[in-house]
Amino acid sequence: MNKTTQALPIFILLLSASLVFSMCANAGDPLPSWNPSKAKNSIVDFVSAVTKKGGKDYVKPEDRIATFDHDGTLWVEYPIYTQILFAYDRVKQLAPKHPEWRKKQPFKALLDGDMNTVGVAGMKGVMEIILATHSGMTDTEFSREVSTWLATTKHKKFDRLYTELAYKPQLELLAYLRAKGFKTFIVTGGGSAFIRPITAKTYGIPPEQVVGSSVVTELQYIDGKPTLVRMPKINFINDKAGKPVGIYQHIGRRPILAFGNSDSDIQMIEYTMAGEGRRLGLIVHHTDADREYAYDRKSHIGTLDKALDKAGGNGWIIVDMKRDWKKIFADK
Amino acid sequence: MNKTTQALPIFILLLSASLVFSMCANAGDPLPSWNPSKAKNSIVDFVSAVTKKGGKDYVKPEDRIATFDHDGTLWVEYPIYTQILFAYDRVKQLAPKHPEWRKKQPFKALLDGDMNTVGVAGMKGVMEIILATHSGMTDTEFSREVSTWLATTKHKKFDRLYTELAYKPQLELLAYLRAKGFKTFIVTGGGSAFIRPITAKTYGIPPEQVVGSSVVTELQYIDGKPTLVRMPKINFINDKAGKPVGIYQHIGRRPILAFGNSDSDIQMIEYTMAGEGRRLGLIVHHTDADREYAYDRKSHIGTLDKALDKAGGNGWIIVDMKRDWKKIFADK
Repeated sequence: MNKTTQALPIFILLLSASLVFSMCANAGDPLPSWNPSKAKNSIVDFVSAVTKKGGKDYVKPEDRIATFDHDGTLWVEYPIYTQILFAYDRVKQLAPKHPEWRKKQPFKALLDGDMNTVGVAGMKGVMEIILATHSGMTDTEFSREVSTWLATTKHKKFDRLYTELAYKPQLELLAYLRAKGFKTFIVTGGGSAFIRPITAKTYGIPPEQVVGSSVVTELQYIDGKPTLVRMPKINFINDKAGKPVGIYQHIGRRPILAFGNSDSDIQMIEYTMAGEGRRLGLIVHHTDADREYAYDRKSHIGTLDKALDKAGGNGWIIVDMKRDWKKIFADK
Repeated sequence: MNKTTQALPIFILLLSASLVFSMCANAGDPLPSWNPSKAKNSIVDFVSAVTKKGGKDYVKPEDRIATFDHDGTLWVEYPIYTQILFAYDRVKQLAPKHPEWRKKQPFKALLDGDMNTVGVAGMKGVMEIILATHSGMTDTEFSREVSTWLATTKHKKFDRLYTELAYKPQLELLAYLRAKGFKTFIVTGGGSAFIRPITAKTYGIPPEQVVGSSVVTELQYIDGKPTLVRMPKINFINDKAGKPVGIYQHIGRRPILAFGNSDSDIQMIEYTMAGEGRRLGLIVHHTDADREYAYDRKSHIGTLDKALDKAGGNGWIIVDMKRDWKKIFADK
């Protein structure tokens, strides 16, 4: 035996030990799709601090409320919000029953495929389309329509169902927070009724932990049966300054962690950070044109401009998608 | 040894066996404050049926939603709703800051102790008093005021805090349902912000599982700090036909069990019972003038009239307080 062969068993032993160690370390990492980074450390440090019994930052489990924006924070929102695509598809589907749409903008343009004219109608036009397609049916019917659409319609770039475009690092984060005693909520500018059918299966978040926008709903007796009918009128817009209000009306407590991705989330994050004790505010920055999209200040979808400026001075954590996420989806 | 002494060991053995059996039977009864009755059997049968895997009435845990009215269903509401007493006390407390109330009805009458005139002002007057005393402060301030009041103000008849007047049989029922995988909600005509500070400790129901009435709330920046301010304007009345609507907007699913005590709960129970599969609707009937109160059709508080007529034909279970509840409170 020369020195090399003598050393071999020790080398193998060390290699095995190192392998076992790294496997264990990996098994112990609750956020494997997050690259080691300031963002990941901030999350783990925060969670450790607020869950450490006797620690100065300890928060009782019942106060561990975490709120997440939906579009662009938990799933893909680009190049157009999923709910708007649903509304557009519904217009095409319902058109035979609405001959008046052939003469009325922006419906006419949409049916003609003239998206420039639809675009010119702006948010007012979009809202008309949303109201027309999200009302006039019962609670159950709307839920069924949404479920069918989301189970069959694919995102063009990715050729995947929208529910398959939930961000893997965020699914890990939601599960990690819940394992640490947090209650996780979705606080979305979109309609709560639009995503409630899929949040439990996709995110492990039950329908009652979705706080969103809504249309006025009425109790009517149809064939003597008490029935909830969705009306063509906005009840509440759970966006921007509406987010802290929606949180108060629905959850009744101030979150200790809030995660958004656009200027629409500024107030939610500010309200969260303004509470006493340790808090964490985070923002997804879409920087990955290859694996997802890159957009921020000048984008009409998920505009991230003022929030980007505010983040630094206020200690909000910017999560850079390209740099901080090892995987964005299950496979890339 | 004569026959008697011979028989003694066997007698003791039987006695012990019977004692052990009865202890076990008691330990196995999840509803010890409920007398054996049709009401108790209905509950236990229903819960067994919907939780029996493979059974025809099986309901998945995530769909086991149970909604409870609050005043008169979970705690004492007589002779006047607790929240109204709070509002009256607040008027007296705030009067020095509101000299205009000395000249304005029904505030003047209330400050003069002239309850007849207050009564004549009716619901409109009560609503004015509620709005005046429930707005003009932040979310945190209101929560603190309510908490202090509920921690110090006693019910005159019982000389107890209102939270001590939660019904023991109902606390057992809530715990039993949760042990069987149900999620329990309070669906109240009162303000959700009024009871949220006490529901977790009193009922094991966290603030976000309280669905109630609300005032419009605004996000304002006070000294640069994002602050929620309660406004003197009704946002939503979660009563009567509003209850199914509130349930839809907040919980997003139809309950399978609903428990009320007055005509204000008719729509909630009807909506619950109109769903597919097995359902349970229940009503507390206040029949115990000795231990609590006896009132129904002609009462202005918790009027139980039409619901009493509807119950029989629709299979709703009437819980007769005097007959069905062994204990109403912890000690009687």
